[in-house]
Amino acid sequence: KNRGSSFPARIQFANQEDKQEFSKFPTKTGRRSLSRSISQSSTDSYSSAASYTDSSDDETSPREKTQVNSKGSSDFCVKNIKQAEFGRREIEIAEQDMSALISLRKRAQGEKPLAGAKVVGCTHITAQTAVLIETLVALGAQCRWTACNIYSTQNEVAAALAEIGVAVFAWKGESEDDFWWCIDRCVNTEGWQANMILDDGGDLTHWVYKKYPSVFKKVQGIVEESVTGVHRLYQLSKAGKLCVPAMNVNDSVTKQKFDNLYCCRESILDGLKRTTDVMFGGKQVVVCGYGEVGKGCCSALKALGAIVCVTEIDPICALQACMDGFKVVKLNEVVRHMDMVITCTGNKNVVTREQLDRMKNGCIVCNMGHSNTEIDVASLRTPELTWERVRSQVDHIIWPDGKRVILLAEGRLLNLSCSTVPSFVLSITATTQALALIELYNAPEGRYRQDVYLLPKKMDEYVASLHLPNFDAHLTELSDEQAKYMGLNKNGPFKPNYYRYQHHSTQSE
Amino acid sequence: KNRGSSFPARIQFANQEDKQEFSKFPTKTGRRSLSRSISQSSTDSYSSAASYTDSSDDETSPREKTQVNSKGSSDFCVKNIKQAEFGRREIEIAEQDMSALISLRKRAQGEKPLAGAKVVGCTHITAQTAVLIETLVALGAQCRWTACNIYSTQNEVAAALAEIGVAVFAWKGESEDDFWWCIDRCVNTEGWQANMILDDGGDLTHWVYKKYPSVFKKVQGIVEESVTGVHRLYQLSKAGKLCVPAMNVNDSVTKQKFDNLYCCRESILDGLKRTTDVMFGGKQVVVCGYGEVGKGCCSALKALGAIVCVTEIDPICALQACMDGFKVVKLNEVVRHMDMVITCTGNKNVVTREQLDRMKNGCIVCNMGHSNTEIDVASLRTPELTWERVRSQVDHIIWPDGKRVILLAEGRLLNLSCSTVPSFVLSITATTQALALIELYNAPEGRYRQDVYLLPKKMDEYVASLHLPNFDAHLTELSDEQAKYMGLNKNGPFKPNYYRYQHHSTQSE
Amino acid sequence: KNRGSSFPARIQFANQEDKQEFSKFPTKTGRRSLSRSISQSSTDSYSSAASYTDSSDDETSPREKTQVNSKGSSDFCVKNIKQAEFGRREIEIAEQDMSALISLRKRAQGEKPLAGAKVVGCTHITAQTAVLIETLVALGAQCRWTACNIYSTQNEVAAALAEIGVAVFAWKGESEDDFWWCIDRCVNTEGWQANMILDDGGDLTHWVYKKYPSVFKKVQGIVEESVTGVHRLYQLSKAGKLCVPAMNVNDSVTKQKFDNLYCCRESILDGLKRTTDVMFGGKQVVVCGYGEVGKGCCSALKALGAIVCVTEIDPICALQACMDGFKVVKLNEVVRHMDMVITCTGNKNVVTREQLDRMKNGCIVCNMGHSNTEIDVASLRTPELTWERVRSQVDHIIWPDGKRVILLAEGRLLNLSCSTVPSFVLSITATTQALALIELYNAPEGRYRQDVYLLPKKMDEYVASLHLPNFDAHLTELSDEQAKYMGLNKNGPFKPNYYRYQHHSTQSE
Amino acid sequence: KNRGSSFPARIQFANQEDKQEFSKFPTKTGRRSLSRSISQSSTDSYSSAASYTDSSDDETSPREKTQVNSKGSSDFCVKNIKQAEFGRREIEIAEQDMSALISLRKRAQGEKPLAGAKVVGCTHITAQTAVLIETLVALGAQCRWTACNIYSTQNEVAAALAEIGVAVFAWKGESEDDFWWCIDRCVNTEGWQANMILDDGGDLTHWVYKKYPSVFKKVQGIVEESVTGVHRLYQLSKAGKLCVPAMNVNDSVTKQKFDNLYCCRESILDGLKRTTDVMFGGKQVVVCGYGEVGKGCCSALKALGAIVCVTEIDPICALQACMDGFKVVKLNEVVRHMDMVITCTGNKNVVTREQLDRMKNGCIVCNMGHSNTEIDVASLRTPELTWERVRSQVDHIIWPDGKRVILLAEGRLLNLSCSTVPSFVLSITATTQALALIELYNAPEGRYRQDVYLLPKKMDEYVASLHLPNFDAHLTELSDEQAKYMGLNKNGPFKPNYYRYQHHSTQSE
Repeated sequence: KNRGSSFPARIQFANQEDKQEFSKFPTKTGRRSLSRSISQSSTDSYSSAASYTDSSDDETSPREKTQVNSKGSSDFCVKNIKQAEFGRREIEIAEQDMSALISLRKRAQGEKPLAGAKVVGCTHITAQTAVLIETLVALGAQCRWTACNIYSTQNEVAAALAEIGVAVFAWKGESEDDFWWCIDRCVNTEGWQANMILDDGGDLTHWVYKKYPSVFKKVQGIVEESVTGVHRLYQLSKAGKLCVPAMNVNDSVTKQKFDNLYCCRESILDGLKRTTDVMFGGKQVVVCGYGEVGKGCCSALKALGAIVCVTEIDPICALQACMDGFKVVKLNEVVRHMDMVITCTGNKNVVTREQLDRMKNGCIVCNMGHSNTEIDVASLRTPELTWERVRSQVDHIIWPDGKRVILLAEGRLLNLSCSTVPSFVLSITATTQALALIELYNAPEGRYRQDVYLLPKKMDEYVASLHLPNFDAHLTELSDEQAKYMGLNKNGPFKPNYYRYQHHSTQSE
Repeated sequence: KNRGSSFPARIQFANQEDKQEFSKFPTKTGRRSLSRSISQSSTDSYSSAASYTDSSDDETSPREKTQVNSKGSSDFCVKNIKQAEFGRREIEIAEQDMSALISLRKRAQGEKPLAGAKVVGCTHITAQTAVLIETLVALGAQCRWTACNIYSTQNEVAAALAEIGVAVFAWKGESEDDFWWCIDRCVNTEGWQANMILDDGGDLTHWVYKKYPSVFKKVQGIVEESVTGVHRLYQLSKAGKLCVPAMNVNDSVTKQKFDNLYCCRESILDGLKRTTDVMFGGKQVVVCGYGEVGKGCCSALKALGAIVCVTEIDPICALQACMDGFKVVKLNEVVRHMDMVITCTGNKNVVTREQLDRMKNGCIVCNMGHSNTEIDVASLRTPELTWERVRSQVDHIIWPDGKRVILLAEGRLLNLSCSTVPSFVLSITATTQALALIELYNAPEGRYRQDVYLLPKKMDEYVASLHLPNFDAHLTELSDEQAKYMGLNKNGPFKPNYYRYQHHSTQSE
Repeated sequence: KNRGSSFPARIQFANQEDKQEFSKFPTKTGRRSLSRSISQSSTDSYSSAASYTDSSDDETSPREKTQVNSKGSSDFCVKNIKQAEFGRREIEIAEQDMSALISLRKRAQGEKPLAGAKVVGCTHITAQTAVLIETLVALGAQCRWTACNIYSTQNEVAAALAEIGVAVFAWKGESEDDFWWCIDRCVNTEGWQANMILDDGGDLTHWVYKKYPSVFKKVQGIVEESVTGVHRLYQLSKAGKLCVPAMNVNDSVTKQKFDNLYCCRESILDGLKRTTDVMFGGKQVVVCGYGEVGKGCCSALKALGAIVCVTEIDPICALQACMDGFKVVKLNEVVRHMDMVITCTGNKNVVTREQLDRMKNGCIVCNMGHSNTEIDVASLRTPELTWERVRSQVDHIIWPDGKRVILLAEGRLLNLSCSTVPSFVLSITATTQALALIELYNAPEGRYRQDVYLLPKKMDEYVASLHLPNFDAHLTELSDEQAKYMGLNKNGPFKPNYYRYQHHSTQSE
Repeated sequence: KNRGSSFPARIQFANQEDKQEFSKFPTKTGRRSLSRSISQSSTDSYSSAASYTDSSDDETSPREKTQVNSKGSSDFCVKNIKQAEFGRREIEIAEQDMSALISLRKRAQGEKPLAGAKVVGCTHITAQTAVLIETLVALGAQCRWTACNIYSTQNEVAAALAEIGVAVFAWKGESEDDFWWCIDRCVNTEGWQANMILDDGGDLTHWVYKKYPSVFKKVQGIVEESVTGVHRLYQLSKAGKLCVPAMNVNDSVTKQKFDNLYCCRESILDGLKRTTDVMFGGKQVVVCGYGEVGKGCCSALKALGAIVCVTEIDPICALQACMDGFKVVKLNEVVRHMDMVITCTGNKNVVTREQLDRMKNGCIVCNMGHSNTEIDVASLRTPELTWERVRSQVDHIIWPDGKRVILLAEGRLLNLSCSTVPSFVLSITATTQALALIELYNAPEGRYRQDVYLLPKKMDEYVASLHLPNFDAHLTELSDEQAKYMGLNKNGPFKPNYYRYQHHSTQSE
């Protein structure tokens, strides 16, 4: 989960031991961010939803209120149950772009593949998540839900979920104590015991491990979406402590392609425009790293008329950059002439203070990779430089000679902070999560052991196929003869399992 | 001036005669809008500048205040002179992207080509305009200035101008009476008589014609930037009433190319993202009209993965669309399958109610052309349809069966309302205006008569050349031998005068 | 006509006076070449047609043979009438891509707009021209035809034309004496006097002027296709010697766009591949000149992964290059690093010996502009350099240190020499010629005087519209209301007449 | 090896047993073809080299001649040793584009990593192969060489190799008996026993297995380049019969990317132009299969203005097509409207007779995939259809109603038959082969067992890095700190081993 980047210092762990355990996990939190619809900053600045989440003057903590939904239930804790109708509309709008989930509901509704499933979930609570949760319910599951981020809850959506009977415990602006209290209320309830976990960041899983290890006796599986959470699971597995099967949905092919190549292709433009109104035509840009993220950025910027060059450490990616028409350079050779410097490496200190010193006046610097340290922002916090906040997410760093460098999002992920994620991308994630739950819940004894799994190739293909109608795309079917010739099953999988790894690159995102 | 589209009903003319005269002018105001940095809506929603323009609780009319700048002058009327320092910073930021003007200052500063010029100006008052005004001052001119739009003034910029001694009369949120009062204060001042007019929309020119016709005895020329204003000038000229030379800077090649092709290429993406967060990849889009605006839109959308088709009435433009890889269709054939419908024709009722009825759920409809009537929005205001405002500039029109069509900016220009214009584009306009003033002010007797002129080709080329350093572009110079071979002067002009007309198309923008 | 470039020295004029007159015309022959399907070199190397044109051992001059077609006529002179059937097939294949002409036949066949027209024509005689000639016949014309180039005749096509009764006088490999003899036989025939002239290069027109000036009494018009021929006509007009109306079809918008932007976009790749098998990906290329030709080359090379920069003398074109994503440089700055240097300027000595000296080993140099002197090839013919012909049209120039520069087509037009022109492009030219004949032949008294005219805008649009069915493109029609709003006739013209000039640029093609 | 497609019926095996063994191997030979510089057809029609390979009237079999090179050796058998000088020049020209091999020579020349290696090789014998062989020699190896294809030898290159002392046995136009005789002469020679095998197609390996199994006692490894050869090796390995380590260089990442995506991007245009002179702009094209080959074709055609749609069976590839802007359709839905149909699936009967029946007049049909049966060409050999060969590699299939479909290369691989492969691509293959030899020859005891291996990731990266100087590309190096942060060795490998598989797809190439 991406909390690391937005407020790591603010969560205090219940006790020192917890803290140590957390701190064992690498700070490298990955760029899972794209699957997060709403970060604190985006909520503040651009999200349409934000406008509905009133900053009302009701300062009472939800924990101290007694609220009842129209069916008489009070097994939830949200900001204001009265916002339910408002939230319902938000959910309906989100449904328009998430037709894959709706279609999944329809296909699987008769057989109720999640009948009997008791899912405890910890994710961002947004209209898109609500579409997921309501799909799980439609498929037969009972759900209890909490937020994985203290800022990202859309209060009216939480209210709408509570109104239809989901036990949701979340509001925007929770304290840390609230955060863990909400998680606890989801897990620790009388007469209900979870048998499935859907997590985003690993906090819920961690809490259960620490506080209610016995719950795992009944749990049939964990579905985890974030880089950080997946990393934790692999650590547990390595340490022999993972006691249930877990599904890593972060690394499914479809999700990866969308989160990286396609999403970045659009969000790099969006993020730059919203923050700086810069004109792309004729701009000289260097993109550091030519992995999937870099490829997406380069492709979009070139298409809009920028003159783009690339830095790489890996000769194979460098050769691809050459063939795609990008000059491969060292940053030092070009940094003086650039209008924009964009990092996409996953590495640290890719842009150093020395290079920042050599940039020309007006150069824009931003980060599309996963690490907050790609740009050595810390090195800019020295007395001779003046920081001037000119807009939300935009700082001018002013050198003594008057030169300004324009730093976006303080070096954090640009597309997390300064652009939005289309519902369509979130639909792919949510559909993958739903299928992973169905798979784990229905898998015959012995198919999965106490390990971390990738989604079976065929289900990956199924996620993709559910999204094709959005594009009015028509698949061709193999004839029997052709299937035999190719040695394939007519219904897939169509590619070997290892095909999925194509997007997993370690040093250039 | 674009007021026509934003508040035509709100300006009442001083008397009936005026009104009639104004109403003689066509409502077709052209899409000169791109040169407008700030419309009412963009000010409200996205402009960074907006955040600095405080909606302070000081409700006193500026006309009733007495303010003095630090040099003791009170020959101005702005919201609050104390905001000057704040405005100064805005101007400095704008200067970064307007280096052509700065460069013009440097090149012409020695000879002061505007020494003795007394310029009265009526334009939007923004940081970018301030850079223009201060350039005129640096070249020797005295300036008095007012706003061409009652909403578009950046108060702190006006304050900064007042502080350095420009007689500026403008604030955001003027009444109509204020509007004409401000114009009057610029023109009608003791001991100072304008000899140059810089207008944007023609209101200032009109006022002088009506109230102070004798001023024209001293005026050496009018520089007009807007489609509407230019149209008025041609009408005057035709009627034999134009009594000074006028320069039409709207139709200079450089400006046209930037306002249409290049700017639309970027702003179509920006406008759609900011309003709808739509993902472009795989979207089916029809662009109505394949002129410069349509070409810009098509090129950008295709580059981002949309599947674009085109409608055209002109077979030559249609053939270009084919060769550029866009299927040429009739709107009726495809409208049912489209994810977006974008109009760029300059015509009216290009998208009819009948076609809106046939669109699929979730279709986005917007207008990039000049006319507010390209989409027949009026036809949507019927009882059976529900309008739901979901964000600023975004309406869902809901059919009885639940189908939603997403209408942006109520069919007004998308890029005026929902995106911003880069300072670089404004720099081209401003430089052209400055050169036109210099040309008219310094032209030898007889070069210009009482007619409307286009900027000489060579000055058009000069504007372009002043902007090349932004791109670190290095021009090649003709050798003597080559110049002779080509029959060209080594310093230009390099193209025949008629070359400029290439972008002037009547039916598809 | 482009003969200038291919064999100017080889035609000797009948007398010294003729020669002088010809030599008055500038050597700048323009790049009209693209409308030439078959140049000497392309015939030799690549044209499919070439393979059918047997280099039979029949060495008898056609002038000495007596041949009769199947209808008993012998009013023609071709290589071998027996090849007629073979030529018929060639014509049928060409018809497939020239459906606009076929469609014109169908539309106009009933009214026979050329009934009574006696057309004498002088063009390349290829399958595509045959489709034109047979269209003229179908529309009612009688035709006599000869070749405008001593090498370009497809013998079997000439035979096929002779077989159906066209009086054709042409064969491949004519001597100069043959050339003028053939022209004479077309013009000077008993009982038949031309009333229309269709010329390509101006030789036929010149001959009539010199030998049979009285013919002009009956001639209703000249249609001329080549830059050189058009230039001659303008000279005649200027000198007051033009005694009939002439139509310049070279400068019609549709033809220009196809001959330059679109055709070069494809032929630059084709010409480079066929000669050098070079891989484009990652290649560093400088394109000299960013007019229509340069734009076409840049667009194609960039799309295939080359890294392209541009040189320009005109700041407006330079600014366009910047905005389109091409770095604007001086040739001297980059020439050492380039893999390819391509000239598209129309100027001379754009690439000098000094620059050739500085190119790196293996650099490819070629010319896409109109002048044979863009690359200073003459400067390479010095003793210290070795020329090595490695393929047809490909020379290695070897420096004393072993460095090789790869020169294509000896600096002549690459796409004339080393690639082919699609029938579709020729169809546009041929349709324009046919319409120009119809227009001149049917124009009411007084519409055209003794001057050179451009095709009326509306007919330009008609040419385009006839080619839209090839793309299955569907035009939108204006409603009455819309036409009125736009001030246009529903049937066009849709653009002002000056719109055509957009492609006419003098210094960068 | 690709002989399967070009002359499978012509090789008769020495005995029935051999034949059976061969026939155990699948006919699916893969599209390894791109690494073949010269197929029979390309030699005939387009290769520049072809022109130098004289079809001299010397009909004496090389086996019956006695030839001696300038050093007195006669341990070779080529067409004509006197052509050596001519061949030398060909090799020098090839060296220009194969600087990676030259660079490898320089880097490794001091240490002679192949000192003591005795390499027997069986490949196409072309100028590019000669650069490889001479590199091996420079690194210390002794080489004996023969041809893997009876048509593909460039005689003058073979002579040049013989002249410098390579024992080469090969000429253009061998009989089958010659073919095996040459292989035998390479292997079975007194006083010399091979310790390394470099094979392309597996025939050499097979011969050694059959005739001289004892040779394997000394052989340290086999390097195999073709799909067929690799398949044979895996079969041997599976059957427990592989008795030495073998390196599969066919599936190295770099080679795959170049052979598929990048090469097809260029060769689809080249192949279509050379055969049909078709104009791409505005053409409607369907590409069957959106794997790497399909992606390359789509990208190029779209860039040149074609309107491209795609068929797919795999929903993930289909979703990629959507996001890349290609409509995903079933062939049946669109086949009637297409101007071109291109297969890239690797499957059979992708285009059926029924679909061919429905194509429109003039539709071009060709195959870029690996199987010769993607288009059901056999179904077109029926009496009612007329085949007309209009050019080399181009047939018109004529339906009774006169409709023509244009079939290229009789449905065989277009880029094998109708375009050429740049030396740069061959350089990547050759460098990979050289490194594989070095690796196997120098590997410490135990690193490789009797199995088939992929080239170690790091060597793949090394191949790429050797080619970067061609593009003047500058790699960035990790700092110690960064390498530690990323958990990488500063010198690579930079990606996990499984990364290579990204391009291996089974059903859509």
